[in-house]
Amino acid sequence: MYKEQLIQTHHRIAPYIHNTPILSSRLINDLIGADLVFKCENFQKMGAFKMRGATNAIMQLSDKQKQQGVVTHSSGNFAQALSLAAQSLGVKAYIVMPNTAPEVKKNAVRGYGGEIVECEPTLTARENAANEIAERSGATFIHPSNDFNVILGQGTAAKELLEEQPDLQYIFTPIGGGGLVAGTIIATTYFGKNCKVISGEPFEVDDAYRSLQSGVIESNKTTNTIADGLKTQLGDINFPIIKDGIERIIRVSEQEIVNAMQLIWERLKIVCESSAAVALAALIKEKEHFKGKSIGIIISGGNVDLAKLPF
Amino acid sequence: MYKEQLIQTHHRIAPYIHNTPILSSRLINDLIGADLVFKCENFQKMGAFKMRGATNAIMQLSDKQKQQGVVTHSSGNFAQALSLAAQSLGVKAYIVMPNTAPEVKKNAVRGYGGEIVECEPTLTARENAANEIAERSGATFIHPSNDFNVILGQGTAAKELLEEQPDLQYIFTPIGGGGLVAGTIIATTYFGKNCKVISGEPFEVDDAYRSLQSGVIESNKTTNTIADGLKTQLGDINFPIIKDGIERIIRVSEQEIVNAMQLIWERLKIVCESSAAVALAALIKEKEHFKGKSIGIIISGGNVDLAKLPF
Repeated sequence: MYKEQLIQTHHRIAPYIHNTPILSSRLINDLIGADLVFKCENFQKMGAFKMRGATNAIMQLSDKQKQQGVVTHSSGNFAQALSLAAQSLGVKAYIVMPNTAPEVKKNAVRGYGGEIVECEPTLTARENAANEIAERSGATFIHPSNDFNVILGQGTAAKELLEEQPDLQYIFTPIGGGGLVAGTIIATTYFGKNCKVISGEPFEVDDAYRSLQSGVIESNKTTNTIADGLKTQLGDINFPIIKDGIERIIRVSEQEIVNAMQLIWERLKIVCESSAAVALAALIKEKEHFKGKSIGIIISGGNVDLAKLPF
Repeated sequence: MYKEQLIQTHHRIAPYIHNTPILSSRLINDLIGADLVFKCENFQKMGAFKMRGATNAIMQLSDKQKQQGVVTHSSGNFAQALSLAAQSLGVKAYIVMPNTAPEVKKNAVRGYGGEIVECEPTLTARENAANEIAERSGATFIHPSNDFNVILGQGTAAKELLEEQPDLQYIFTPIGGGGLVAGTIIATTYFGKNCKVISGEPFEVDDAYRSLQSGVIESNKTTNTIADGLKTQLGDINFPIIKDGIERIIRVSEQEIVNAMQLIWERLKIVCESSAAVALAALIKEKEHFKGKSIGIIISGGNVDLAKLPF
């Protein structure tokens, strides 16, 4: 039922995004005993898959809405993605960021033309700030992951992957806010051949794992993980899609994330975020269950601070 | 006069190498004010362009020579390249390495099936060791850069680049032993449209720069550079080609190399060696001379020790 929507989404955003390259490594294949391909969204514009969903969400607005701009709260890749997508489309973007956000992240948002509005580093404060901007300016709030147009946009990464590799048996993604996973599930449903979606999640922020167990959206009491893109929780729009469509979630330790990240850097020769390495870490952790399988791994992003590497 | 040889070389080695991807970055283009494409030999098999020349040199041997193996002295990428190329072609490879070489480099050679012969870390000792192996086993000595078949192999990287980007006005490479530059000059002569070759070289090992000035092959008294792939000197086979065909050599400081490397990692999202960053460092240093030009940069390799990064 979403097939046509996903096709239209891809057609719509294609001029504004990269169809990112797919890489592979003989050594990593030998190590895992399976055939892996890596969809490199670290090469996406602004360095992460989030560019896809942000672009689609803005393009679905009416002309009047576009004139009034968009607003989100994020200190991560979605802040940059919404800024750049808005800039490309001639739309104003307001980005609510905690006043504790690193200067390097603020500069990235400013570099893409986003207007930063600082707030206290609490959920209430950021929601209040975003609401206030929306009321004052008429800007449309766009959630980083719990928005169906964002989800459809994120799904185009897996659609591209399956168009090049139609026989994949599994696609692995990291799971954070749930937008990428929900989009990947939709894409595999319509463009895969019984292709299953599996997500990796850090033990330290295993809210999605627990949400699948309890059947309701769980949150994290602490977020003590290197995978800083995965600290967010699922939402009421993506959770039903995930609950219905995901094969399973595999949890990984912090050291397993670092090890997978190092393997990607050393062997694929690409720069990826710690959050992006969680998908491969999950596969490595349970590799004995995937011998001989054909597997796609979504490398979700490549925005790192080279001065703060874990190795 | 070498056009047909280069075509045959490329045809010969194509099944054993990757036609590596070409990347670009809007931000880097804006920074330099030119149109850049990066030929990513860090994605080459074993992680560097050296795989091309090593493969070609072995394939040009007679069957009898192949049975007796090959030998080289190198502690860098050519050691790994000759080992892997030999393994792929069912040939024995002896690698003379100084007993001071890091264990990680020895393990890489062993991983590709090369047999390591250790020697004292002097030029005389390594030449003696290589000669002794050649006499004892009948193995053919293959020089990492001063061998015409190696040079032709290295030239296939620029040939691929020009096949995708025929209108390039410049190709930048790092210069070390001179094999890549000489091969690039041959490729641009026959496949470019008045495309000029420029090399970057660290001030700390500027033997090639001084060789162009003096007209004879100069050496380095000290080799105090982060670009450890560029410590070697030119040879009698590649120097005439370079002297005749290179546009110029631009020297760069150690900090300029690190800055260029960081730019490549952060913006192209790829892992490259410090030696590979020297080409971009040279362009950045003199960017005002290249405004609006169409420029190819050869990213020569991506084998790094993540525990020893300069940033």
